[in-house]
Amino acid sequence: MRTYLDCIPCFLEQALRAARMMTNDEEKVKNILNTIVYMMPDIPLSSTPPEIAAQIYAKINDIAENHDPYQAIKRESTKRALALYPMMKEYVAMANDRLLAAIKVATVGNLIDYGVASNEIKIEHEVADLLEQDFSVCDYEAFRKRLEQAETLLYIGDNAGETVFDRVLIEEIQKPVIYAVRGGPIINDATREDAMQAGLDDVAEIVSIGAAIPGAVLEMCSPEFRSIFSDASLIISKGQGNCEALIDKKGPIFFMLKVKCRVMAKVLGLHEGDIVLKQNPDGYI
Amino acid sequence: MRTYLDCIPCFLEQALRAARMMTNDEEKVKNILNTIVYMMPDIPLSSTPPEIAAQIYAKINDIAENHDPYQAIKRESTKRALALYPMMKEYVAMANDRLLAAIKVATVGNLIDYGVASNEIKIEHEVADLLEQDFSVCDYEAFRKRLEQAETLLYIGDNAGETVFDRVLIEEIQKPVIYAVRGGPIINDATREDAMQAGLDDVAEIVSIGAAIPGAVLEMCSPEFRSIFSDASLIISKGQGNCEALIDKKGPIFFMLKVKCRVMAKVLGLHEGDIVLKQNPDGYI
Repeated sequence: MRTYLDCIPCFLEQALRAARMMTNDEEKVKNILNTIVYMMPDIPLSSTPPEIAAQIYAKINDIAENHDPYQAIKRESTKRALALYPMMKEYVAMANDRLLAAIKVATVGNLIDYGVASNEIKIEHEVADLLEQDFSVCDYEAFRKRLEQAETLLYIGDNAGETVFDRVLIEEIQKPVIYAVRGGPIINDATREDAMQAGLDDVAEIVSIGAAIPGAVLEMCSPEFRSIFSDASLIISKGQGNCEALIDKKGPIFFMLKVKCRVMAKVLGLHEGDIVLKQNPDGYI
Repeated sequence: MRTYLDCIPCFLEQALRAARMMTNDEEKVKNILNTIVYMMPDIPLSSTPPEIAAQIYAKINDIAENHDPYQAIKRESTKRALALYPMMKEYVAMANDRLLAAIKVATVGNLIDYGVASNEIKIEHEVADLLEQDFSVCDYEAFRKRLEQAETLLYIGDNAGETVFDRVLIEEIQKPVIYAVRGGPIINDATREDAMQAGLDDVAEIVSIGAAIPGAVLEMCSPEFRSIFSDASLIISKGQGNCEALIDKKGPIFFMLKVKCRVMAKVLGLHEGDIVLKQNPDGYI
């Protein structure tokens, strides 16, 4: 999916938030913001939003000389999600359809996102609310059938903490899973280390997409990851960044996400706040 | 109140919305947006947000060669608000305290704001909801006492359509009222023509603040308006733009507004969406 003009104010909003995470000096924040402002007129709208975001966050990190500003937040998110793990397991165990319940859990986990939300996310409260919310799109039958036939399953992760919710779903999938993480720190997205803190190495093989980009833009991913992607008989794409990167790609992809902005809502024909299990419109099933 | 770095993404959001109102050609929209983007690093944060907004909207109107892009929207807002007028009058008539009810009506009318909201505002539904909402700050006793003593009353209007809600309050005030409008078209703010369409010329003397600016920044207003301002024994300031312009000024000012962004919320120590009747913190009562 391309970048829209609507993304420009949002990129600056994100830049402001990221800069403030790194310094309390508003003069420095202003300088960082202005640097990003001057980048805006030249951004190629034909690129996907995660590609632009990767450039913006890299620039901010360079200026602030901080390679991984979200590290502490990521650890905290994982810790708090792990505390919710028993509740999630019980939610699945009590469900009539365990797989569907686990998909709901994994999708609801996408509420954790420090690229979008500035305030501390009250995940404990929001998880309970979101679990009550119906999917706006739920291509569950297609997913279930595809899963039955699948041999190689690729699960493309999104944020740290959300990883724990992903683990709940992977534990319900009775097949080998490859779990893909970012190739380096980018916003609060999960890296290998974050996935391991969530215990994902016990239930999946962890691989890197090969780039520090908040969405698996295939052209920027490693040849190894692209090979895994093209060989997979079922691909789960978590979160908005991966959806932005992959919505135009062919393949047996199922997107699980919370819709977090009006652009994504428009592209998917949905509303902000919706939770979605959506088969790739170009999928070959 | 000064401008905050948080206002920069918001200004661009507003610029995008304004540009799209004037053209469907995304290339033209992009050119307009980029022009505004390049203005951002040089905006003086010591200025009030309405001063910056006035420059931005003037620049957009210049580029698009459209002096009053919100004219049709303003007419429509006034028309729809006039259709609600009988309901508002009944709401006041049924109330235990007519004045307080009319203040609520006038404040709720501040939901009409095309600077903030992009979608068509469903005023018919939102008015009913907001009338049920309690004031987060309600300096009503101070207001009532001040009104009893007041001889000259200045009412600084905000948006077209909201004008009709203002009329309901002015009709409950048993004193002569001077109603101030913008000196020229700016966003959907009320000009003399808009105020007259709301019937305000029947219940008040209409004056201009003397500038096309979406908030009564005194330094930019006419000497005539400044004189009325300093002579007034009670000033009602409607909406966020006027509040941004006047919050640091001395005088017997009461702000009536819906809090529309996180910056205003922080300045007032309130939350977005709150409705407020707030005595000027520096007021001399």
